[in-house]
Amino acid sequence: MTTKIGIVGYGNLGKGVEGAISQNKDLELVAVFTRRDPAALVITSDAKVCHVDEAESFIGKIDVMIICGGSATDLPEQVPHFAQWFNTIDSFDTHAKIPEFFDAVNEVAANSKTTSIISVGWDPGLFSLNRVLGEAVLPQGDTYTFWGDGLSQGHSDAVRRIEGVKKAVQYTLPVPEAVDRVRNGESPTLTTREKHTRVCYVVTEPNADQDAISQAITAMPNYFDEYDTTVNFISENEFDENHTGMPHGGFVIRSGESAAGHKQIVEFSLKLESNPYFTSSVLVAYARAAHRLSQKGQYGALTVFDVPFSDISPKSPEQLRAELL
Amino acid sequence: MTTKIGIVGYGNLGKGVEGAISQNKDLELVAVFTRRDPAALVITSDAKVCHVDEAESFIGKIDVMIICGGSATDLPEQVPHFAQWFNTIDSFDTHAKIPEFFDAVNEVAANSKTTSIISVGWDPGLFSLNRVLGEAVLPQGDTYTFWGDGLSQGHSDAVRRIEGVKKAVQYTLPVPEAVDRVRNGESPTLTTREKHTRVCYVVTEPNADQDAISQAITAMPNYFDEYDTTVNFISENEFDENHTGMPHGGFVIRSGESAAGHKQIVEFSLKLESNPYFTSSVLVAYARAAHRLSQKGQYGALTVFDVPFSDISPKSPEQLRAELL
Repeated sequence: MTTKIGIVGYGNLGKGVEGAISQNKDLELVAVFTRRDPAALVITSDAKVCHVDEAESFIGKIDVMIICGGSATDLPEQVPHFAQWFNTIDSFDTHAKIPEFFDAVNEVAANSKTTSIISVGWDPGLFSLNRVLGEAVLPQGDTYTFWGDGLSQGHSDAVRRIEGVKKAVQYTLPVPEAVDRVRNGESPTLTTREKHTRVCYVVTEPNADQDAISQAITAMPNYFDEYDTTVNFISENEFDENHTGMPHGGFVIRSGESAAGHKQIVEFSLKLESNPYFTSSVLVAYARAAHRLSQKGQYGALTVFDVPFSDISPKSPEQLRAELL
Repeated sequence: MTTKIGIVGYGNLGKGVEGAISQNKDLELVAVFTRRDPAALVITSDAKVCHVDEAESFIGKIDVMIICGGSATDLPEQVPHFAQWFNTIDSFDTHAKIPEFFDAVNEVAANSKTTSIISVGWDPGLFSLNRVLGEAVLPQGDTYTFWGDGLSQGHSDAVRRIEGVKKAVQYTLPVPEAVDRVRNGESPTLTTREKHTRVCYVVTEPNADQDAISQAITAMPNYFDEYDTTVNFISENEFDENHTGMPHGGFVIRSGESAAGHKQIVEFSLKLESNPYFTSSVLVAYARAAHRLSQKGQYGALTVFDVPFSDISPKSPEQLRAELL
């Protein structure tokens, strides 16, 4: 069975989805939808490029729309909109607003008999799955999520908004001692500061006051004030050479104790050279599942918690049992 | 909703299941079934102890039977037998015979409208899930499974059968260099010998020929001949002090490349002080799922691949979305 896919939005994530589809023989990219002028958008594959307003005419020609917009304003509007016509996948990642977003998407999808898997990716997504697994299997214990080493887009943006900053990136790093204590089963209570540190690489404008910039960063409320932050000023050359990738990763660790008092540690970890390309790969696997689940009549909004792994794999249940169980 | 559970077989695994049930408020142990004389069996909890032949009288009083026998002869006979009356969980782990076992259980369960989740545990089980996940998300790449540091029951038994051996354990250890190469994304081709080593701790009878025993171990076909094996002869005291636990663990690593050539590494790992207690904890979480799936009418044989994580958790879908997504 081939799953025909449409992409809405062609930023880092949309490009990643296009690439990920090309790695799967059972998936086919039909069209990329953009709010810009379609004639001005050059894409990598030979799929169609259309304006988002043309999407309705693709009913029956596209099985799943992967919506690649931002969580702040795009997805809350776009996902319910497209869910009236198509099965959808999104990577909505504003954790606190997930219940509200789920309800809004579910209302449209349930009424329209479409299947929308929301908040897909790695966190929320694969990390969430491992949080559920850890709790279910080891009900007595503690769950720890560490992020990094990884580039944080939001924090990098915040640094770039400071006067005198020309270019900047911010990396989040787990504190090795904290990770070791968790892996050793110590179940420590860790403050925000004890779990992660932040490191910034900053290129300044000529004659900028670097001390003032450094202070503005480390004292920035919500973003940096609760962390130990190191600020490195570097040349534009060094920045362009070493700091334009989007690596990320992290771990979810469940440290539990079984009834007889044995320590049991379950860990899931990711080491990603490209965060958007990996997220895209996850979206694409769940697009396959959305298509299958809609064919089974499982309509409405779903999350990764509701999707069995057999549905994200291109292999048949028989193959999976024989080859991978 | 409470799930009422029966245990068939009271060895290490059955005891572990009894313990794991006590850690979950929504699970209740109703009875332990044994082939021995029930009057002679002392269990930890205050559940009933019955002969296996009495099981049929518990129809309607037990939601799920967890069958804790061995894969060689017990499970192929017991699981289809109990599946005519009850939803079942088992830890059948003879990888090569899983398709055949699945078909046998499926025929009974589908006809009897019961739900049997087969081959539950960590390998097969959680490791299998991560092999499927890795392939689905990173279709271009390699999957590696390493086991250990852990006690291998089968290999320990094999050593104990050698003449002159009084007590023995065998630990399987992943080769650190091999693991590092995989974690670094090198995607090496590894032979059996390059992936794992084996270490034995042996207590001999007085006047036993230790050289002959050592040779008999390292040359043993299928068990040891393809591995680098170290044999340590120790005193009975040391053995009793340090080698009576059943630790295990291991990792499943997917080393893949996204379309633009970025290396992406996904790893799932376990570090277990007690293999049977952890396996039991997994069985118990999937017993909850078997009960729910049977109530949804999903009858027949299933594997962990067919079970969404929402069904192994005691939490409601709303709670899972709000707290763990």
